[in-house]
Amino acid sequence: MVKVGVVGASGYTGGELLRLLLLHPEVEIVKATSREYAGEYVFRVHPNLRGITDMKFDRPSLEELVEACELVFVATPHGVSSKLVPRLLEAGLRVIDLSADFRLKNPEDYPKWYGWSHPHPSLLSESVYGVPELYREQIKQAKLVACPGCMAVAGILALAPPVKAGIADSQHLLAHVKIGSSGAGAKPSRSTHHAERYGVVRPYKPAGHRHTAEIEQELRLLSGGGEVKVAFSAHAVNIVRGILATGHAFLTREVTLADLWKIYRSFYRDEPFIRLVKDRKGVCKLPDPKAVVGSNFCDVGFELDEHAGRLVALSAIDNLMKGAAGIAVQNMNIMLGFREDLGLKQPALYPA
Amino acid sequence: MVKVGVVGASGYTGGELLRLLLLHPEVEIVKATSREYAGEYVFRVHPNLRGITDMKFDRPSLEELVEACELVFVATPHGVSSKLVPRLLEAGLRVIDLSADFRLKNPEDYPKWYGWSHPHPSLLSESVYGVPELYREQIKQAKLVACPGCMAVAGILALAPPVKAGIADSQHLLAHVKIGSSGAGAKPSRSTHHAERYGVVRPYKPAGHRHTAEIEQELRLLSGGGEVKVAFSAHAVNIVRGILATGHAFLTREVTLADLWKIYRSFYRDEPFIRLVKDRKGVCKLPDPKAVVGSNFCDVGFELDEHAGRLVALSAIDNLMKGAAGIAVQNMNIMLGFREDLGLKQPALYPA
Amino acid sequence: MVKVGVVGASGYTGGELLRLLLLHPEVEIVKATSREYAGEYVFRVHPNLRGITDMKFDRPSLEELVEACELVFVATPHGVSSKLVPRLLEAGLRVIDLSADFRLKNPEDYPKWYGWSHPHPSLLSESVYGVPELYREQIKQAKLVACPGCMAVAGILALAPPVKAGIADSQHLLAHVKIGSSGAGAKPSRSTHHAERYGVVRPYKPAGHRHTAEIEQELRLLSGGGEVKVAFSAHAVNIVRGILATGHAFLTREVTLADLWKIYRSFYRDEPFIRLVKDRKGVCKLPDPKAVVGSNFCDVGFELDEHAGRLVALSAIDNLMKGAAGIAVQNMNIMLGFREDLGLKQPALYPA
Amino acid sequence: MVKVGVVGASGYTGGELLRLLLLHPEVEIVKATSREYAGEYVFRVHPNLRGITDMKFDRPSLEELVEACELVFVATPHGVSSKLVPRLLEAGLRVIDLSADFRLKNPEDYPKWYGWSHPHPSLLSESVYGVPELYREQIKQAKLVACPGCMAVAGILALAPPVKAGIADSQHLLAHVKIGSSGAGAKPSRSTHHAERYGVVRPYKPAGHRHTAEIEQELRLLSGGGEVKVAFSAHAVNIVRGILATGHAFLTREVTLADLWKIYRSFYRDEPFIRLVKDRKGVCKLPDPKAVVGSNFCDVGFELDEHAGRLVALSAIDNLMKGAAGIAVQNMNIMLGFREDLGLKQPALYPA
Repeated sequence: MVKVGVVGASGYTGGELLRLLLLHPEVEIVKATSREYAGEYVFRVHPNLRGITDMKFDRPSLEELVEACELVFVATPHGVSSKLVPRLLEAGLRVIDLSADFRLKNPEDYPKWYGWSHPHPSLLSESVYGVPELYREQIKQAKLVACPGCMAVAGILALAPPVKAGIADSQHLLAHVKIGSSGAGAKPSRSTHHAERYGVVRPYKPAGHRHTAEIEQELRLLSGGGEVKVAFSAHAVNIVRGILATGHAFLTREVTLADLWKIYRSFYRDEPFIRLVKDRKGVCKLPDPKAVVGSNFCDVGFELDEHAGRLVALSAIDNLMKGAAGIAVQNMNIMLGFREDLGLKQPALYPA
Repeated sequence: MVKVGVVGASGYTGGELLRLLLLHPEVEIVKATSREYAGEYVFRVHPNLRGITDMKFDRPSLEELVEACELVFVATPHGVSSKLVPRLLEAGLRVIDLSADFRLKNPEDYPKWYGWSHPHPSLLSESVYGVPELYREQIKQAKLVACPGCMAVAGILALAPPVKAGIADSQHLLAHVKIGSSGAGAKPSRSTHHAERYGVVRPYKPAGHRHTAEIEQELRLLSGGGEVKVAFSAHAVNIVRGILATGHAFLTREVTLADLWKIYRSFYRDEPFIRLVKDRKGVCKLPDPKAVVGSNFCDVGFELDEHAGRLVALSAIDNLMKGAAGIAVQNMNIMLGFREDLGLKQPALYPA
Repeated sequence: MVKVGVVGASGYTGGELLRLLLLHPEVEIVKATSREYAGEYVFRVHPNLRGITDMKFDRPSLEELVEACELVFVATPHGVSSKLVPRLLEAGLRVIDLSADFRLKNPEDYPKWYGWSHPHPSLLSESVYGVPELYREQIKQAKLVACPGCMAVAGILALAPPVKAGIADSQHLLAHVKIGSSGAGAKPSRSTHHAERYGVVRPYKPAGHRHTAEIEQELRLLSGGGEVKVAFSAHAVNIVRGILATGHAFLTREVTLADLWKIYRSFYRDEPFIRLVKDRKGVCKLPDPKAVVGSNFCDVGFELDEHAGRLVALSAIDNLMKGAAGIAVQNMNIMLGFREDLGLKQPALYPA
Repeated sequence: MVKVGVVGASGYTGGELLRLLLLHPEVEIVKATSREYAGEYVFRVHPNLRGITDMKFDRPSLEELVEACELVFVATPHGVSSKLVPRLLEAGLRVIDLSADFRLKNPEDYPKWYGWSHPHPSLLSESVYGVPELYREQIKQAKLVACPGCMAVAGILALAPPVKAGIADSQHLLAHVKIGSSGAGAKPSRSTHHAERYGVVRPYKPAGHRHTAEIEQELRLLSGGGEVKVAFSAHAVNIVRGILATGHAFLTREVTLADLWKIYRSFYRDEPFIRLVKDRKGVCKLPDPKAVVGSNFCDVGFELDEHAGRLVALSAIDNLMKGAAGIAVQNMNIMLGFREDLGLKQPALYPA
């Protein structure tokens, strides 16, 4: 059993990591830290874990983490990770970071998108962007994996095949993302108060969202390094879990549906957590978070708009799973040489 | 009191018309027809009207409509209106049609988008497209007003100002619409079954939606007749009422936020049902259907994406109000010379 | 135009009062106070009122209220009203209080249920309990009306007819209430955070709720003064507005459905805001908040359980309308001699 | 691997059985029948199973079931099971029936509660009522297990301890159940149409529900055979999965909270799927389906109402899990000698 720690275990991503790791057959959680809830039973914050564990939250302590753990998941707010992670790495631990602090390769992107200078820019080239569909081989050897932003990974997985295939006008890509309330974290506020948040279709970040940087970084690499511009918009919708990313790409040449099938199929061949969803029958003919919530699947689909010369590229994920804790465990499995889907086989609940 | 009839009064749009007209101080409902529910109490289908009216649904009859009514609202499925409306007009009645049958000016658009040839193409030039913000003067004189599609009017009102101002790349407009379940009508099906429909973010029509035709028709006129291409996508979200339209327009020249304010303000000056929503404070800083549901308002807002050279144009409406029954009553008020907001002053419920 | 003030206008009840009073043809809002939002535009807190009013919140000031207003609605938290109201009354104003501070007639009930001693017990006998269905005549003359608790009025209106008719075992009454999140007010907390509150069926107060005191007080009076014991349970459900109260009464003698119809019909004869709902057809055969939300109606229905010798007494209201602001305006209409339904005729939105 | 079949696999309970059995390490699904969807891919009806199985629905055939299976789950509508099950038993198969057809011990209860005479009354004494918490030993040997009704098992598990302890007035028990829309099955209708069903608190069966019979049968046995009368009411609420049962029991003698803890603790000692939830901290202090959805847990809690001399007994389950497919697999595990929680260890998703 590999000894793992979870830093920031009282947030929603932390809770989801605990849920997955508690049932994982090859790891043991030896630390679950929370500044706010240290000493409190885990199940009082994550009531689904009542009866599953009697663990309490630990006070965060670098020394204790280093002593107890072989691998640490860091689920702290942006800016905190960049201080903690280097010290964990120095102590020889492997780290899976779920913050934004090690996702971007270009140090200049941090002041631009996040408003601060990165304190350890040299680590940016060492960290591996934790999307197995793009970097599986590098993840195997990585000491530090930076899990992608939840909306970023959805946008990337929808648009990567056509961008790589060179059929999209990469100067005018659009990613239109709808997300549930768990994406805003566990801290109450007026805008997340049930009476205010229920029933919204709220364009909370129609432009300027930080995940834009990740999407452009990855699509640029896939496109062969040319200029890539992504117009990104984020909307909050009336669910708790789930993301639907609708990518729009204007086509640079005529393609058929058969071409698109070939492009997507070859890109995602044998991927354990990608399902191509473009069906003629049934209620779920295209990706919809309703069919993935609770699972680590990313459903990917597409539609051809001949009228407007456009490809609609769709992906659906559970933001706490494939968008955070699930992809983190998938990365761990790869790093530790386990089956990639170990502890991640549960399909969605349906209907729910 | 003007005597009005509602054909197709048992659907959701019909029910909303009844709700508005029953409280309207200047009209009297003399006919409310329903093929399916003829003879049944209205309040058994529209339970909100219990205690408000003891009216029963009438069997649809051209003769009785003509005899009893001065003005008729036609809320029947597409294809039915085009048969009924000409006969109502011949009999001298004024008609407000809520179907798609008289919205498009070019007869060739019907086979293209709807799959049938229009039986009365000459009426297409006589009918007025029922968006008061664009055609108020023509509506005053109209015998036949064709109310817009709910998603179309939302898309048009968001994008009209920048298109008219000539700042948008009109070849690559995008309209991304999210809509509640009442937009699908009252007929049950597997895809609208609560257990299946609850919690979805379903891209039910990512391309090829018929409302594209209306949006392009109107934006083309506003643009001065040049080529206009709209990439339209429709998504179903977990609410009953409401539409958020997110329009994306790549800018053809540099504009500032101040320019955008000027463009939108001048376009919508003195409009009684347009609210410009772009605020620095509060939970609702931009349009959100949550703030309009139950009202006839269309909230319009915008954001400038300097990174991607894009304007995000937003509008929020209640699909049964400004998207159907509300705009129909607004049109009626204009046609009959009443105050435009008569019977339409109720703001949204909030929170709800 | 009667000059009215609203104290505590930034809460959900306050916002609903503003919505109703702004459209009321016979009153003018001259003060809308809020400690937290003084100086802020009303529409930033109540976004539905954007475009309806440019009013700003006033700082609460007794002097200014007294100078400006003829009648004041007090929508402050429990404990605040009892200090403010006596001073408003002394200054000759009429007061409609929406807190619990003047609802209970027996001063000893305050320490028992609320944990404090009432500072002005003599006013308890002067204040009229603001349920027009029970106290219409007294309200006409009242200087001070104490509006009922939202769950209390629902429970009372469901159970009043059988209790008055003497057919219920009044020692073993049960009131089982389900309520939406707006009932918890506008202040954010972990338990009302959307991600935590969405989808719950939460027995948040299975016993000991303060509204028990009001229900027992009123049912005791209706029963002729005998002992009345109400077992009250409150549950939070996944809606924003609305209450369904399910009352259970064991029958003391055999009754038929016809008897029950007679009992309910005679009790509520000619009541403008009570609808008896017990239908054989349609989706809403019995009371459901879905059919009243946005209106001032209280739908009342019943079912006879012959197997268990029980009457199920049901009522549905909008907690912010008939449960708070709507009944307050209804009381105002009665106090000021207006038509009782003035400004309150809007039915529910349906579907919504 | 034990070969199992699922009859009625296209319903919601059937889909949930497939989800559980596909991941169960000791069984293999060899038949999944559906009259309506025979020949269709399972994942078109249950979209969560896409990528998990390529199975298609089989035509229902007694011969093929008998040939292929060792144990069969029967998830057909009431009335169908009673015809099929006897023939499966005759052929030597073990059967887990999820319909109501073999739940009631007294043949006279069928005409009384279900309106038909049981065709095989002798089997009623052979079948074991499938609640492991009550009949674990009998289930081990059973050829036929009749899984309980979803609302029945929730009511029974809440009220069993106090009834057995003899502290409840068993003539006046109340079970007030709130249930999500999946409980109504997969067949669309007007009353389950999203626009109509969303946001309801609908008292759809305030009296006379058939599950009353099961609850009374089991509580009578637990009470030692005395008279037991349950007043049962069922309400539909705005969730898809989940049941909260609120039981109300008037106390026959004074008890303390400590007494109640003892009564519940001793009744449910070592039960793998019962969690006692009565906490002083956290958002989920008492049972709430939100904390169990997706799991096989039944959360049980209680509150003492000293004012009314009442015990409030609460239980929360996922109606498709502990209320149907989960308890069925739990029963299978017991029948086949597996660990009782095999394939059933997943906790709820939270938040979701």
